[in-house]
Order: sequence, then structure tokens, then C-alpha cells
Amino acid sequence: MAEDKTIDNYNEVLSRSGFIKLLNIEILELNETHAKGRMPFDAKYCNPGGSMHGGCLYSLADTVAGTLAYFKGFDVTTVEGSMNFLEPAINTEYIYCTAKLKRRGKHLVTCDVEITNDAGKLLDCGIYTFFRMSD
Amino acid sequence: MAEDKTIDNYNEVLSRSGFIKLLNIEILELNETHAKGRMPFDAKYCNPGGSMHGGCLYSLADTVAGTLAYFKGFDVTTVEGSMNFLEPAINTEYIYCTAKLKRRGKHLVTCDVEITNDAGKLLDCGIYTFFRMSD
Amino acid sequence: MAEDKTIDNYNEVLSRSGFIKLLNIEILELNETHAKGRMPFDAKYCNPGGSMHGGCLYSLADTVAGTLAYFKGFDVTTVEGSMNFLEPAINTEYIYCTAKLKRRGKHLVTCDVEITNDAGKLLDCGIYTFFRMSD
Amino acid sequence: MAEDKTIDNYNEVLSRSGFIKLLNIEILELNETHAKGRMPFDAKYCNPGGSMHGGCLYSLADTVAGTLAYFKGFDVTTVEGSMNFLEPAINTEYIYCTAKLKRRGKHLVTCDVEITNDAGKLLDCGIYTFFRMSD
Repeated sequence: MAEDKTIDNYNEVLSRSGFIKLLNIEILELNETHAKGRMPFDAKYCNPGGSMHGGCLYSLADTVAGTLAYFKGFDVTTVEGSMNFLEPAINTEYIYCTAKLKRRGKHLVTCDVEITNDAGKLLDCGIYTFFRMSD
Repeated sequence: MAEDKTIDNYNEVLSRSGFIKLLNIEILELNETHAKGRMPFDAKYCNPGGSMHGGCLYSLADTVAGTLAYFKGFDVTTVEGSMNFLEPAINTEYIYCTAKLKRRGKHLVTCDVEITNDAGKLLDCGIYTFFRMSD
Repeated sequence: MAEDKTIDNYNEVLSRSGFIKLLNIEILELNETHAKGRMPFDAKYCNPGGSMHGGCLYSLADTVAGTLAYFKGFDVTTVEGSMNFLEPAINTEYIYCTAKLKRRGKHLVTCDVEITNDAGKLLDCGIYTFFRMSD
Repeated sequence: MAEDKTIDNYNEVLSRSGFIKLLNIEILELNETHAKGRMPFDAKYCNPGGSMHGGCLYSLADTVAGTLAYFKGFDVTTVEGSMNFLEPAINTEYIYCTAKLKRRGKHLVTCDVEITNDAGKLLDCGIYTFFRMSD
């Protein structure tokens, strides 16, 4: 597990993103193979029907997995990310995302993600691929 | 092509979504097999590096393709959506998304999407699947 | 865990598929939330470069995840499946695929898959969505 | 459009793949931004239900898009490919796949694919990303 101080540093970098601030995304845990983050549930992040917009959930996952891909390394850019929406995100204070490293190569990093609610129920799952800007 | 009035109706429904308002997404064109929408480029939608956050672009695509899937039909929910990020979204006033219908089935609707900038340059492409809440 | 007899039954159904026979895919483990299968490594399944063709690995995953989706239920058809190719599939006697259930809904079933070699090294990962032909 | 002779060369390289021979895949058209290939419909490529196995269709698409990605360039490996299965592949002599270039970067190449039957009906669509082995 990275020290809290390191997580603060990562959150400070993320806070320079207007969009990540707009979504109030924060990283909670981070090490070489695992990252966890969350964002609050709020009506301003919802669909007309009152559940979180899929694009919000995708944004959370892209940010958490991207932070894992970037961990102590080169800057990264998302190559491709797919998300499967299993259950509506409603009736929760926060939405959590856990990213796990599947492979960290010289050029490419692949992570899978799971999105859960306060009760730990699985809402969404996906896989993201990042490119490391190493040259 | 649906009449402007119809597009206004669709935009009115979308405006009930806090998130779609937050992103200032609007539908410009809509008929049975095609939809086009846009959102403004703004620092508040960007990454630390200054390009639009991938989650923003995904949100735009999910909204435009979802409107096409929903066209004159049952309510829909996104089953799965994948996005390939080809070029950074920078130096543009608006980001445009065009969705094309690939198949409209009884239960499932599939659309592909292309995201472009003011100059019409292709920035991203993806495919979304929706489930029609018909029962 | 399903009894061996049940697995034999599933393998008997799969053997009616010309393509599954061509690939020599067999199911090894199966219960409500988990399935495992394998196919042999062979030059006839390879790329010009000598590693297994990605389409072979995708076929194995589609078959194992599809068997899990089908488990004791209605017939299923694949809606969408994506695969991330992490490492070349070489130097192994068998290729294994493990599928885990993410959600079994009334209409849709989602599974993730991992492909490994004899040594248990992760080679590929992906997510598949199936539609249950219940009406 | 590449000359027929060039296509023969590409088909000769592909024929060194046991799996591509097993599927009888051939490239019909190829230039810098477009490729088209086909494989015959045959019971040995089918599901228990009698339609082509999704893994077969994926293999065809991976091969045709991979040939486009490789065109006059460095060797490529598939990073990720997703396929959406829209209609069953039945009642056709051949299955055709058309791949279109979305972006050819220094390291990454992205193509979309459409699979059709003899009548030109769209059966499947997908997107593939390849990595160019340039260093």
C-alpha cells in the first residue's frame, strides 16, 4: 500500500483536472497492482430516471484505473475502455471503483475495474487499456 | 429526419438529467437510424493535461447513442459500451458525436459512434448496446 | 460444483458443434457461478508466428463463458464479447479458460474470463454478455 | 487498391498459419485504409444450433483487420478486439468481413469491422486495436 502522503500527491494531481473536480473523484487506496477510488452520489450526476449516468461511472473507472496505470511511472493515455452496466447506481452515498492490474508492459497497461455501492454490491465491470508515453 | 420540434422534445427530456445539463449536451439531429449531438469544449471537462477527459467523451456518446436507441420507442438502459480513444480532444469549440444504428431488435439496440472536432477530424470511435425496457 | 455426470452432459452438447470439436474444447468444471475449460495447444491453432491465434482464444472463452451463462437455464446467444490479449500463448500443452459470473439477469448474463497457460500465467482477459432466449 | 499480386503475397503469408488455413480465410481486397476477406460457411464452423460460432466470426475479423493493420508496415499483434453479434450467420455460402482503418499511429492501429453474408446483410460489427512491433 502506498503511504497516505503519496495518495494525497496523486489526489493533488487529479484535482488539477476540471472534470475530476466536477465529479468529486478521490483516490482512497493505491499500490502497484491495486487502486480504489470513489465519488459521491448526487442528483447532478444522474440520468432523467434518477440513477447515475453511465458516463459518470465510466469516468470514475477511467480515472481510478488510469491512476493505477500511471503509478510511479510514465504519463498514460487511455487507448480503449469498455464498461458493462449490470445494475442501476441508486440509493447509495458513494460509488466505489476498484481497479486491478492485469498486465503492466513497456508500452501498454491493462486493468480491470469493478464498481460497487455502499453495500458492496457489484454494479458494473469493465476493462481499460492505457498507453505509456515513454517515448 | 425528425422535425426540429421533436428534437426539442428530446432535448427537454435530456435536460431533466443533472449530468447531461452539467455537460451541456444537446441533440442536433435525430431520425430512426442516425443521431448527432454535441457538447462544448471547456476547461471544466478536461484532464490535468488540458484535453477533454475520456469519461466526458464517453458520456456524450452514451447520451447520443442512447437517444437514438430510445427514438420513438421504449425506454432503454445501456448494457455495454466500449470506446477507442484515437486523438486528444483539444483546440475545438465543440465536440460532436454521430451515432448510427447497426441493429434495432425487440430487446437489444446496437449503435456505433464517432466523435469529431470542429474540423471534422475523427477523435474517437466506439460501439454501444442498449436494452429496451419493453416488459 | 456440478457432478461429473453433468459436465459430461454439457460436453456432449458441445460436441454437437463442429467448431468446438475442431478446437477440441472441453469443459472441466461447472457450477452456477464458475466454469473452467481447456483446449490443447497445437500448430493448427496458431498464427504464422507460432503463437495461438487470438480468434482461437476468443472461441475458447466464448464457449466456456457461454456454457456458464447457459447453466441449467435457457439457451443463450452471445451479444457482445471483448478480449484483451496480454501475452502470447506459446510453450504450453493446454490453454485454460476460467469464466466467472458477474450477473445473471432475466434476459442478460455477464461473465468475465481469464485465459492461462499450464503454469497458470495470465495470458488474456475479457468480458462476455449473453442473451437468454427465454421468450 | 493493392495489386492482385500483393494480395496473393498476403494470402501466402496467412497460409503459413495453421488456424487461418483451418478456417479457409482469404483476403480479397487490400489497400492502406480498407481490407476485405471471406471464409466459407460450413458445418464444421458452427454451433450446436447450426449457425457459425462467434469465435469463427471473431477469427475472420481479427485476421482481416490484422492484415489491414500490418499493410506494408511492421508486424502487429492484437491488443484488444470486441465484437457485437447482431444476427445469426446462417444460410450463406461465404461470410465476408470488411475492415476500415480508423487510425494508424506510430504504435497503435485501430480498425472497425463489419461482417456480412452473401446478401450483404450486416451480421456483426466490432473494433480491433493492434500494436505495431516497431521496436
